[in-house]
Amino acid sequence: MGRPDKPGDDDLIWSRNRAAAGVSSPAMSETIARDPLAEALTEALGPAAVFTGEAAIEKAQGAWMRLGSPVAVVYPRSTDEVSAVLKIAQRLRAPVTPWGGKTGLAGGAEADGAIALSLEKMNAIEEIDTASATMTVQAGCILQVACEAAEAEGLLLPLDLGARGSATIGGNISTNAGGNRVVRYGMMRDMVLGLEAVLADGTIVSSMNRLMKNNTGYDLKQLFIGSEGTLGIVTRAVLRLRSAPVSQNTAFVATDSFEAIPKLLRMLERGLGGGLSAFEVMWPDFYNLVTTPPAQGAPPLPRGYPYYVLVEQLGGDEAADAATFERVLGRALEDGLVVDAVIAKSQAERGKMWALRDDVGQVNRNGPCVTFDVSLRIADMPGYVAEVDAKLKARWPKVDNYVFGHLGDGNLHLLVWTGEKGPENKKAVEEIVYGPLAAIGGSVSAEHGIGLHKKAYLPVSRNAGEIALMKTLKQALDPNGILNPGKIFDA
Amino acid sequence: MGRPDKPGDDDLIWSRNRAAAGVSSPAMSETIARDPLAEALTEALGPAAVFTGEAAIEKAQGAWMRLGSPVAVVYPRSTDEVSAVLKIAQRLRAPVTPWGGKTGLAGGAEADGAIALSLEKMNAIEEIDTASATMTVQAGCILQVACEAAEAEGLLLPLDLGARGSATIGGNISTNAGGNRVVRYGMMRDMVLGLEAVLADGTIVSSMNRLMKNNTGYDLKQLFIGSEGTLGIVTRAVLRLRSAPVSQNTAFVATDSFEAIPKLLRMLERGLGGGLSAFEVMWPDFYNLVTTPPAQGAPPLPRGYPYYVLVEQLGGDEAADAATFERVLGRALEDGLVVDAVIAKSQAERGKMWALRDDVGQVNRNGPCVTFDVSLRIADMPGYVAEVDAKLKARWPKVDNYVFGHLGDGNLHLLVWTGEKGPENKKAVEEIVYGPLAAIGGSVSAEHGIGLHKKAYLPVSRNAGEIALMKTLKQALDPNGILNPGKIFDA
Repeated sequence: MGRPDKPGDDDLIWSRNRAAAGVSSPAMSETIARDPLAEALTEALGPAAVFTGEAAIEKAQGAWMRLGSPVAVVYPRSTDEVSAVLKIAQRLRAPVTPWGGKTGLAGGAEADGAIALSLEKMNAIEEIDTASATMTVQAGCILQVACEAAEAEGLLLPLDLGARGSATIGGNISTNAGGNRVVRYGMMRDMVLGLEAVLADGTIVSSMNRLMKNNTGYDLKQLFIGSEGTLGIVTRAVLRLRSAPVSQNTAFVATDSFEAIPKLLRMLERGLGGGLSAFEVMWPDFYNLVTTPPAQGAPPLPRGYPYYVLVEQLGGDEAADAATFERVLGRALEDGLVVDAVIAKSQAERGKMWALRDDVGQVNRNGPCVTFDVSLRIADMPGYVAEVDAKLKARWPKVDNYVFGHLGDGNLHLLVWTGEKGPENKKAVEEIVYGPLAAIGGSVSAEHGIGLHKKAYLPVSRNAGEIALMKTLKQALDPNGILNPGKIFDA
Repeated sequence: MGRPDKPGDDDLIWSRNRAAAGVSSPAMSETIARDPLAEALTEALGPAAVFTGEAAIEKAQGAWMRLGSPVAVVYPRSTDEVSAVLKIAQRLRAPVTPWGGKTGLAGGAEADGAIALSLEKMNAIEEIDTASATMTVQAGCILQVACEAAEAEGLLLPLDLGARGSATIGGNISTNAGGNRVVRYGMMRDMVLGLEAVLADGTIVSSMNRLMKNNTGYDLKQLFIGSEGTLGIVTRAVLRLRSAPVSQNTAFVATDSFEAIPKLLRMLERGLGGGLSAFEVMWPDFYNLVTTPPAQGAPPLPRGYPYYVLVEQLGGDEAADAATFERVLGRALEDGLVVDAVIAKSQAERGKMWALRDDVGQVNRNGPCVTFDVSLRIADMPGYVAEVDAKLKARWPKVDNYVFGHLGDGNLHLLVWTGEKGPENKKAVEEIVYGPLAAIGGSVSAEHGIGLHKKAYLPVSRNAGEIALMKTLKQALDPNGILNPGKIFDA
């Protein structure tokens, strides 16, 4: 299976760029009386669950970036303990940043001057209901653990992303995680039936709906999905599971025009009758990069085509699905939508195809890239990529712009190497990449979220009316602004 | 294709029961100074778009119930005109109830003493983007018109429900409509990518996202989906389309235990590899009713089995899908999950199978039934139905309780005939049917919404914390309570 791009040296760039990105000033931590806070937290959770001072700062080392200098790091073991922490924080007006796996890619877990509230100890899988195909789970449960538990019951939790071994269900909910199978199963939002959250004042809202259909008033869970911990802290959830697939078919195909790509996508959706589970497009620069030494990958198709697509089907019957897959791709060849194709004939061949898509690290061959996670309408893609390419080349004639992505979802990743480094380089590249998106209704974040890193670019994708309504919600749910302040927007 | 149950004489019962259901007192209309309101509305929209007095009351005849006595009925032709109406209403503190097709089943469009704002004139399909498979549409567009426009482009708008010829896209969004294909495609919520809404003060919030993935801050559209016009009035939307299916296979099967049903559901989900599009279960009383004269339907399988299931697959290849469908059902027979089965061999046979599911009107053979739209976990269903049956029989020994539903979604319809009529009978039946749901996390409304009719039972399915949070949202977005007041809950 494919893996989403790992961050390059983005962390390096980011750490240099903290002030510009709007990180709260270290002075904030001084405004919090450390002792009463530490005392109250220790009284509520016990000394083993509260870290302050250097011990707190040590805990703030994330997988690929530091998460600031929290004034305290706490490990509640129950929803009631999360509530107790928020009541203390509310009383003392101390900011609180929730932590899941600390592997987010937008700085949403940055906790400088805040109480970092880790859900790590709340990691139980409480129930799997095989008849209704649901899982009830605590927020700190690692995604991979949840996926394996589902699999053991013949079911599928279809969220599939690179950080599966560290990311938590609560973090996936708070960022509305995407990944490799969105074209088939949707994003995390589509997998959450119900959840429990603790509000800024410590109120516990249990909205643990287990039902596929429940039209009884407002769908409150939506407030907490994708809002990056700014409206409440998710403590438990009920997830919708699917039947585990029986068959997997994978192919690499080439097209000779961009226009063929959306037609091919629709043909596959139609012909595979709901079985299409990945549609990953690579522009030739990326394809050449990952099939050229020192990359390990061999090219499954000749170089020189304008576009390559990795296609996958998950189905219910090995023999029948393989035949269907071959027949549909054959038709695409006959119709000229595809000009070359190779179907994986074994799990090993399948693995090699996905390994090309996964070998994103190659982009840092000459030094760190600036990485992007944009989305836009498929029809806008060729013009957009051409415009960005031209602007990049005008400024940096030797620039590399590697483009690939979950095209079935409208999501492109751009990885840009200019030969330069530092925050000014990053900002200049960002302006070129994000600039054209406003006019075409594109998004500066398809799946990673806004967090701290993209806050300056939120107005590219959301208008003033939308941001004002977000602030109305924030004000209604967190009037004192203690929940993950400074993330997404400045309240 | 199947059709959801049409209301019986529920309207009759409802009209007798208005006071009990919490309809705003007619006195409310007196508190609004009619003349300044009518004048302001007429100035904003022109005289042809504003009806007052008897003309307004005439417009309030819905398809199966009267929608109260509105003080005015207005027909804006643009979002700006909707905004103008809301600004007037806000200034005069006049309640506003949006109208779509006026065929909702929970009284959400009841407009007694309010300005009824019909979206009927805003019915344009603005764009179909075949590459990205999206449709941009105004709220007043009839569902069936939108579906046919998608079909003409080889695409599918998969919402499928009985009122398709009258229901509007805006109404479907406001009620989060369900229907026959939820097991495959989800509810209306899953088909909305973006929308435009007018807030209580007339502010237009344009959140017309066209992207499958857009993690840039709060997902504001969720506020307006399923909130029955109480937080804003939806004026336009971007809908996600799917590839149109190529093949359709339909079967009637019987099982000899309830325990086999969820196993069969999982086997079909798994074996059909994403193609399962309907899983409609009938309890024997319902099956016998719709296959016995004066019903037209002949029994496709012998009577006497404990459960019948109507199963459908939508796929991408006629021959291959038919073979898969037969193979999977054959395996279910071998495994004993199914004890009898018949596959439709023609469109005519398919039509006859669906006609049985559609022939809900038979339940009113002896007089009106009280109709329900509940959802609950599949595992809870046999116990729940047995408990309800026993309690009904204890009170009305000759009671009929017809049970069937979208079991793949956890959604059951119960239609109860007691031989009695009137609001007291309705309330007594409701208490028996809704009573057990609280303890098992069931829902009093799977797909029809709360509106006015189920407001008294909202606490069965939502706890005090949830309702308090709903009220927080209502207060934040509509502090003067002018938007569809009295629906879902009393603010």
